[in-house]
Amino acid sequence: MITLYELAGADDARRFSPAVWRVRMALRHKGLAFEGRPWRFMEKEAIAPSGGGTVPVIVDGDRWVRESLAIAEYLEHSYPDRASLFGSDEGRALGRFMVASVDRTLAFPVSRLILTDIFACLAETDRPYFRQTREKRFGTVLERVCTDPKAELDNIRSLLEPVRRLAAAQDYMGGPRPGFADYALYGTFMWARMTSRKLTLAEDDSLRDWLARVDALFDAEGPRALAAAGMEP
Amino acid sequence: MITLYELAGADDARRFSPAVWRVRMALRHKGLAFEGRPWRFMEKEAIAPSGGGTVPVIVDGDRWVRESLAIAEYLEHSYPDRASLFGSDEGRALGRFMVASVDRTLAFPVSRLILTDIFACLAETDRPYFRQTREKRFGTVLERVCTDPKAELDNIRSLLEPVRRLAAAQDYMGGPRPGFADYALYGTFMWARMTSRKLTLAEDDSLRDWLARVDALFDAEGPRALAAAGMEP
Repeated sequence: MITLYELAGADDARRFSPAVWRVRMALRHKGLAFEGRPWRFMEKEAIAPSGGGTVPVIVDGDRWVRESLAIAEYLEHSYPDRASLFGSDEGRALGRFMVASVDRTLAFPVSRLILTDIFACLAETDRPYFRQTREKRFGTVLERVCTDPKAELDNIRSLLEPVRRLAAAQDYMGGPRPGFADYALYGTFMWARMTSRKLTLAEDDSLRDWLARVDALFDAEGPRALAAAGMEP
Repeated sequence: MITLYELAGADDARRFSPAVWRVRMALRHKGLAFEGRPWRFMEKEAIAPSGGGTVPVIVDGDRWVRESLAIAEYLEHSYPDRASLFGSDEGRALGRFMVASVDRTLAFPVSRLILTDIFACLAETDRPYFRQTREKRFGTVLERVCTDPKAELDNIRSLLEPVRRLAAAQDYMGGPRPGFADYALYGTFMWARMTSRKLTLAEDDSLRDWLARVDALFDAEGPRALAAAGMEP
C-alpha cells in the first residue's frame, strides 16, 4: 500500500495542493491502492526522508519519492503493466511541458487570486508560516496581493488560451485518452475549487467540457473530494 | 512539386517568417520536394486561393492549405509513409500545444525586441503596411515599442523556461526524435536570427544545445539559409 502525503487545511478533508492532486489522479489512473495522509506545512519532519520539505511525497515500501513529475515517472517505471500515464515518448514530453507551463505561467496568478481564501482554510498552526513565506514572495501583506480580482481573473483566463486550444481540438490534453498532462493542469482547478469560488470560467469556455470530463474520471474523484470538504464542484 | 509561399524581405534570401519556418522544416522532415517562393505582405492576391492573406501557404497539386499547424496536419495525413511529424496522438497534442504556447506567450515579446530590425529588412513596398499595422497593434511608433531591450530580453529568457526544462531533460521537444514541436519553436529563433542579433541566449542555457541540434538537421537547413541572407547563425 502506497502512502501519499497530502497538504490539508484545518479540516482533514480539505486537500488542496495542486501538485498533490496531480499525484492523486495519477495513482487512481494506475489503479494503485494508496492511503492519502493529511499533512500540514509545519510537519516538515514527517516527510524529511523524502529529501525535501514539500508535498507531494509518496512512500512505496521503503522508497520515498517527491515532486509530482518525479512521482509520475516513478509510477510509470515501477508499474509498467498498469495504464500508462504518458502513452508515448511524446506524451512524457507533453506531461513535462504541461507541468513546467502550469508552474511557470499559471501558478502565480492563480495563487494571487485565491491567496486569502487559502489562508482562511489553513490550520491555525500553519497560518504564521504561510503568511510569512507568501508575504515575502509577493512583497506585501496577504490582503493586498490581489487588489483587482476581476483583472486577475481576466489575466488567468487569457493565460489559459494555449490549453483552451487543446481542449477545443480534442477530448483530453494528450488526445483521445486522459493522462498525466490532464492531471498536471487539473491540479490547479482542484486547488482553486477546494479553497475558493473565485476561479471561474466563462459560459462558452471550451475548458468547461474538458473539466467536466476529468471530473468524471475514477468515480468522480475530484467532485467527491470537493463535496467532502463542503465545496461545490 | 509542392510550392511554399515564404515571406521575404527586400532580399529574396531573407525568409524570416516564424510560421513559414515551421513548414519549411516540416517539408524537409518529410523529405518532400518543394519550391520556396518569395512572397511579400503586399502580394495578398497571389495567395488569395488559400482563403487568407498571410503565409505560410502551400500549394500541393490543386490543394491550397494555409496556417502552419493545418499544413503540418495536412502533410501528416497526405504523406503517411514519410517520417511522422508527430509520432503519436500525444505528439500531435504536443505540437498543437507548442504552437499555441509560442504564439500566445513568445511571439509578442520577441516581436517587440526585433521590430525595428525587421522593418529595416523589408522591401520598400512592404514598409508602409508593416509600419501601419504594427503601430496600431502596439499603440505607438515602431521606434518606441521597445525602449528597454535588456529588460525585454530578460523577459523573453524567462518566458522560455518551460521549453528550457524540456531541452534540459531530453534531446528534442518530444523526446529522442525531432518533430513538429521542435519546428514550432525553432521558427521563432529563425525569425529572430534572420532579421536581428538581439535575441541571444545565456552561455549556460540548455536551449543552446537544443538549438544546435535542430540547426544540424537536414544538412543544416537553418544555418545555410542564414548564411545566404548574410546573417551569422
